[in-house]
Amino acid sequence: MAISTEKFEDIKSKIQQFIQEEMISDEGAFDINHKFADHLPFLEEKRNKVRKMGLFTPQIPKNHGGLGLSLHQLGQIYEILGQTFYGLYVFNCQAPDAGNMEILMEHGTDYQKETFLNPLVAGKIRSCFSMTEPDYAGSNPIMMGTTAVKDGSNYIINGHKWFTSSADGADFAIAMVITDPDNPNPYMRASQIIVPTDTKGFNFIRNISVMGDEGDGWNAHAEIKYENCIVPEKNILGPVGAGFKIAQDRLGPGRIHHCMRWIGECEKAFEMMCERAASRELSPGKPLALKQTVQNWIAESRAEINASRLMVLDAAKKIDNEGAYAAKVEISTIKFYVAQVLQNVLDRAIQVHGALGMTDDTPLASLYRHERSARIYDGADEVHKTRVAKEIMKKYLK
Amino acid sequence: MAISTEKFEDIKSKIQQFIQEEMISDEGAFDINHKFADHLPFLEEKRNKVRKMGLFTPQIPKNHGGLGLSLHQLGQIYEILGQTFYGLYVFNCQAPDAGNMEILMEHGTDYQKETFLNPLVAGKIRSCFSMTEPDYAGSNPIMMGTTAVKDGSNYIINGHKWFTSSADGADFAIAMVITDPDNPNPYMRASQIIVPTDTKGFNFIRNISVMGDEGDGWNAHAEIKYENCIVPEKNILGPVGAGFKIAQDRLGPGRIHHCMRWIGECEKAFEMMCERAASRELSPGKPLALKQTVQNWIAESRAEINASRLMVLDAAKKIDNEGAYAAKVEISTIKFYVAQVLQNVLDRAIQVHGALGMTDDTPLASLYRHERSARIYDGADEVHKTRVAKEIMKKYLK
Amino acid sequence: MAISTEKFEDIKSKIQQFIQEEMISDEGAFDINHKFADHLPFLEEKRNKVRKMGLFTPQIPKNHGGLGLSLHQLGQIYEILGQTFYGLYVFNCQAPDAGNMEILMEHGTDYQKETFLNPLVAGKIRSCFSMTEPDYAGSNPIMMGTTAVKDGSNYIINGHKWFTSSADGADFAIAMVITDPDNPNPYMRASQIIVPTDTKGFNFIRNISVMGDEGDGWNAHAEIKYENCIVPEKNILGPVGAGFKIAQDRLGPGRIHHCMRWIGECEKAFEMMCERAASRELSPGKPLALKQTVQNWIAESRAEINASRLMVLDAAKKIDNEGAYAAKVEISTIKFYVAQVLQNVLDRAIQVHGALGMTDDTPLASLYRHERSARIYDGADEVHKTRVAKEIMKKYLK
Amino acid sequence: MAISTEKFEDIKSKIQQFIQEEMISDEGAFDINHKFADHLPFLEEKRNKVRKMGLFTPQIPKNHGGLGLSLHQLGQIYEILGQTFYGLYVFNCQAPDAGNMEILMEHGTDYQKETFLNPLVAGKIRSCFSMTEPDYAGSNPIMMGTTAVKDGSNYIINGHKWFTSSADGADFAIAMVITDPDNPNPYMRASQIIVPTDTKGFNFIRNISVMGDEGDGWNAHAEIKYENCIVPEKNILGPVGAGFKIAQDRLGPGRIHHCMRWIGECEKAFEMMCERAASRELSPGKPLALKQTVQNWIAESRAEINASRLMVLDAAKKIDNEGAYAAKVEISTIKFYVAQVLQNVLDRAIQVHGALGMTDDTPLASLYRHERSARIYDGADEVHKTRVAKEIMKKYLK
Repeated sequence: MAISTEKFEDIKSKIQQFIQEEMISDEGAFDINHKFADHLPFLEEKRNKVRKMGLFTPQIPKNHGGLGLSLHQLGQIYEILGQTFYGLYVFNCQAPDAGNMEILMEHGTDYQKETFLNPLVAGKIRSCFSMTEPDYAGSNPIMMGTTAVKDGSNYIINGHKWFTSSADGADFAIAMVITDPDNPNPYMRASQIIVPTDTKGFNFIRNISVMGDEGDGWNAHAEIKYENCIVPEKNILGPVGAGFKIAQDRLGPGRIHHCMRWIGECEKAFEMMCERAASRELSPGKPLALKQTVQNWIAESRAEINASRLMVLDAAKKIDNEGAYAAKVEISTIKFYVAQVLQNVLDRAIQVHGALGMTDDTPLASLYRHERSARIYDGADEVHKTRVAKEIMKKYLK
Repeated sequence: MAISTEKFEDIKSKIQQFIQEEMISDEGAFDINHKFADHLPFLEEKRNKVRKMGLFTPQIPKNHGGLGLSLHQLGQIYEILGQTFYGLYVFNCQAPDAGNMEILMEHGTDYQKETFLNPLVAGKIRSCFSMTEPDYAGSNPIMMGTTAVKDGSNYIINGHKWFTSSADGADFAIAMVITDPDNPNPYMRASQIIVPTDTKGFNFIRNISVMGDEGDGWNAHAEIKYENCIVPEKNILGPVGAGFKIAQDRLGPGRIHHCMRWIGECEKAFEMMCERAASRELSPGKPLALKQTVQNWIAESRAEINASRLMVLDAAKKIDNEGAYAAKVEISTIKFYVAQVLQNVLDRAIQVHGALGMTDDTPLASLYRHERSARIYDGADEVHKTRVAKEIMKKYLK
Repeated sequence: MAISTEKFEDIKSKIQQFIQEEMISDEGAFDINHKFADHLPFLEEKRNKVRKMGLFTPQIPKNHGGLGLSLHQLGQIYEILGQTFYGLYVFNCQAPDAGNMEILMEHGTDYQKETFLNPLVAGKIRSCFSMTEPDYAGSNPIMMGTTAVKDGSNYIINGHKWFTSSADGADFAIAMVITDPDNPNPYMRASQIIVPTDTKGFNFIRNISVMGDEGDGWNAHAEIKYENCIVPEKNILGPVGAGFKIAQDRLGPGRIHHCMRWIGECEKAFEMMCERAASRELSPGKPLALKQTVQNWIAESRAEINASRLMVLDAAKKIDNEGAYAAKVEISTIKFYVAQVLQNVLDRAIQVHGALGMTDDTPLASLYRHERSARIYDGADEVHKTRVAKEIMKKYLK
Repeated sequence: MAISTEKFEDIKSKIQQFIQEEMISDEGAFDINHKFADHLPFLEEKRNKVRKMGLFTPQIPKNHGGLGLSLHQLGQIYEILGQTFYGLYVFNCQAPDAGNMEILMEHGTDYQKETFLNPLVAGKIRSCFSMTEPDYAGSNPIMMGTTAVKDGSNYIINGHKWFTSSADGADFAIAMVITDPDNPNPYMRASQIIVPTDTKGFNFIRNISVMGDEGDGWNAHAEIKYENCIVPEKNILGPVGAGFKIAQDRLGPGRIHHCMRWIGECEKAFEMMCERAASRELSPGKPLALKQTVQNWIAESRAEINASRLMVLDAAKKIDNEGAYAAKVEISTIKFYVAQVLQNVLDRAIQVHGALGMTDDTPLASLYRHERSARIYDGADEVHKTRVAKEIMKKYLK
């Protein structure tokens, strides 16, 4: 799957122009004090423009009405969109909806596609993904407390989730639940199930205050309690017991998505750092840019961002050509490498801004706070490093 | 100035116990969602207990009614107080009031002491220090835009300041203003002047939103516009033109204060990291503490915190014995070293906490966000490194 | 300039096989105690095999009898050759001869080509490049003490050079000399001049002991004194005053050469680290590879090496397409980035080897010692960082 | 054990003066090309001066004829001596003899003291310590291959050791050997036994080439094969099975010794870095010291060296007051912290020296090469970090 280079370059430059003219230049788009709810009319207007340009939901395959881009091409789009806070949202390729669309396309029944996928692709509704639990660390399938017990043609769900991002205002959640707790293969104990958010027993507790912000709507991380929440069996996504397999599927392309978005943020911060280094004067006519430490930061940031982009696009190409399984070392490598680069670049950009960098008068502070999570979610960096090493060491340990 | 070791150990253990029983164990004391204004009755109650214990405003000399501690002793107190958010406040040795008391004691007239110092020492009023300007970088005396022009027996102040911390609710500001713009010695161009906050023309613009929080009262950073703000000449602190000299005086002991507070925060975060490493299980019976990466973080944090404490107390001893001028290399060294250690330790503690570390359900996120400024204020780390190197190189460059 | 992908892949696999079978598997090839002089017969035998394969001097253009590879293709060859100590030598693309061939091709007269270039290309003689001076730091054209004074149709050279690598046994040096000390443009003060090493006044002082080794022959760094050394004017390379311009020309492709060789060394060290991690047991059945710290090093090394290769090949492609001048940011970026990665990887490989890593029983210690210079020569890393930053900041500083 | 501050200051200043006048100012003392054997007459002359000053073997207790210094005092002496290559040797407190004296004093029989300890204390003979084995990693007592089998009143030793430092020319080795391979407590399987080096079967294989140097005499690391090497039973040091316990005893004070010596080397390198930064000019009148990166290195090195010294002396004080067992966290902490600081400082000093730093014309290259082992021997840094973490976590894991 891919389109010709000319067509792609044309699309890319249109998107670049749109972001430049409609999003970055719009002050409101990056104002962190805006409520998502208040901002929706603006966002909907922009989405309509994107729809008219024929570029809405660009990530899905041609047969689902998308552009038919390769992951290598999509990655480049994500970088551009990542330069503004709402870039991905306005093109309807934002997390967690993009990932949900992906697994619904792959594993959904006709009923599920019609009911949940189609309105999502059309941007009419939003969704969330309900996996992380406050009582259990990390990504260990044995360590999950939420259960779905078969009861006739229904499942009864009980459990406690958090970081169910964007649940506030979503129409449905895809929840990871234990359906077969005694399966000797722990990786087959869980399933994914679609839970409309108006189901009784789907109890929205709060938008968690994260690094100083509760957020709202799409821009928030919810805590959910499932309390005798009854969902029909037809809402199971894929085979019973396939929950982790499907979650894995979701991760490969998802990492390209996140990493390229982070690179977009890096470029944004890099640009701001350079501008500030030019304009902030230590004495008349002596901008910060003359200080060698600042020069070091600029050069090191350039090197690290370039390295990041080349590695992520290389991984995308490998997924395109050989599939996500073959690219698992690359996928884990970019996860921890780019997450660290993002933190490095944001930290340097703030330092160059001085006191201003601490304020919410620029987007840097918000990026610094919220993207600290890049080293935590989707598997902490440490988990990915171990994974890479184990994979590499297989041939040495025979 | 110092008290006997036994007396000091007695005071220390009383303070440690007070913090443990009255502050840390009180959930409200560390809840970041509390408004300062709402929290005041609680704080005032605690202050009264401290007053009764005879330990209020412990940092001032005996002849001003204080405990007569050496800086080396005070440092150890600051570390203990720094383990809770309001520890220093409850003992009335919080910034910026403690620094203001110091320079008022040293340079204030009888009028100034009676009017401004005494109620401050008694904890009846609060104050602020108005130096940083949004339009100028860093600490260059030539680069300051706020002026005070003599007009009869008054000064008329005009200018734009920010990060006038705790201005919200303060009774007076000590403002750094240019009084002699043409003085060939740029270090003699500025003066410090006391401005009651109810003076006409002292215009409070806002509490700046910093890393996601506007805060309020003592716990906020204000933007102030001085617009034809008229203050009597008797409010000048020390000689006209001595503004920078006085600001320098303030910095030496102030760095001990900040560094030891940061070390208190490090110990708090270290404790939380260890507890979390013990309680967070990757699989049943396998706590995070068994992972070598986490062990590395614990060991490296222990080393860095120990190094920090030893260096800060060593610098304090040198200030006690030889004065702040003789200790200037040490003072600048601890500034950049401890600020970095604080960031390292907080970062590791968050990583060990995983998603929980991102939330405001623990104090870590707040510390992480707000103490990012440790590397910026009071001279960015880079400025202090250069200062240390220049001082050391004097003997080599002859 | 480039050859088809199939042809190139064929050449690459032949070279890979040759290195594997003839060089790596030959213990002598990596034994650091071998004298170069003693090793020459072995090397000459291998060179003859390479000549028969038609792959000798692979880096030169087709019209000079080379393979006509692009820099992007050549880079990949250098990585393969870099995995053994004498790989580049055996293919006659070793420094400093390869650089000398390059500038002789570009700037040499017919006389110079016939006399100096042709035997060099044929591998019949060796050469050296005489630029660095012990009395002056770095790469500043004003800071050079060696002069060549016109005297009739000759030049009389006087000066003191060191790190004239491979001078021991070389047939000629290309020396950087000041010919026009008063030129207002300091970058036009120097020229390059060819000095046969048997010229009177070309005084070989010593092979400098570097990190414990004096070395000999090609594998050594010489100190040279030019004392009234008389060379005919026809030995000037290119126009008088063009010394620095020519030196610059030499650097772009030279950096690809060095960086890819370093990456070859990284892969060699990485391989050894993994093998050691598998075979070194802390207790029976518990290899070092199970330690998370070692896993971190493996993963981080993999990430950094991959990033290095992608960046260097990307820079090579840019030089191929747009020329070295357009790629100057990329060229400086890879210099400092890859030099640091090389040091990181070697350091980790040694640590995994434990005491064995300190010994000369493996090639790691030698690489660790000698490649420390990677961060120093051809412009210290710090110089390149500043260069990158200045180039990037041009558009911001207007 | 300690002497009065005045006495100690007097001794310290005498030693400082001696090192300054007799050792540092003597070029030969730091010339790495000198053979130890050739240098012995010079060293013996210096030792005689030290003997006359009454400062020879300063580390031993008063009742053994030493100065009776506390470890806190001794540490300060080691730093001074560590500033020259032969400083510790000339005062007869060099490794491994100092450690051997220590355990002989503690655990030796009268026979052993008379035969082995006394001439060692007098500086008449040298010794070595034979523990590390090429076939086993690290410090695991189960992982040791050298055995001593009881045969009548003798032990027959067989095994393969290396890094038996200073064996070349030593009179005896203290060897770690397995005497009770089946003891259920693996920590009681080994014993220490004294092996005169002229015993048949004590086969000196070679001085191992380490980072480019084979060295000789005291200044070398030997490989030894024990082949049916017969030693009388009375040569067992301490109880049979106490080998590891005694080895542990040796380590606490030994780490103070090594760490303070490293700090001496750091100060030496720091001094050289500053001098070079002052004298190396990038253009006339513009020394390297003006570059901010160099300033950062100077400031960071100063901070790290100061932190190191304070931590090591703090650990020494704790050993003095509470014993090595109570100070085990501190002892492991300084091991990894100071070893890393040493590498940082040496690396920076070399970078500031440029090409000169790579040569053996200064002591930096030798320090850089050989002290790379600081992070490996006496337990790799990683082992000590884990140890610190485990110790700290005990109270959290209950």
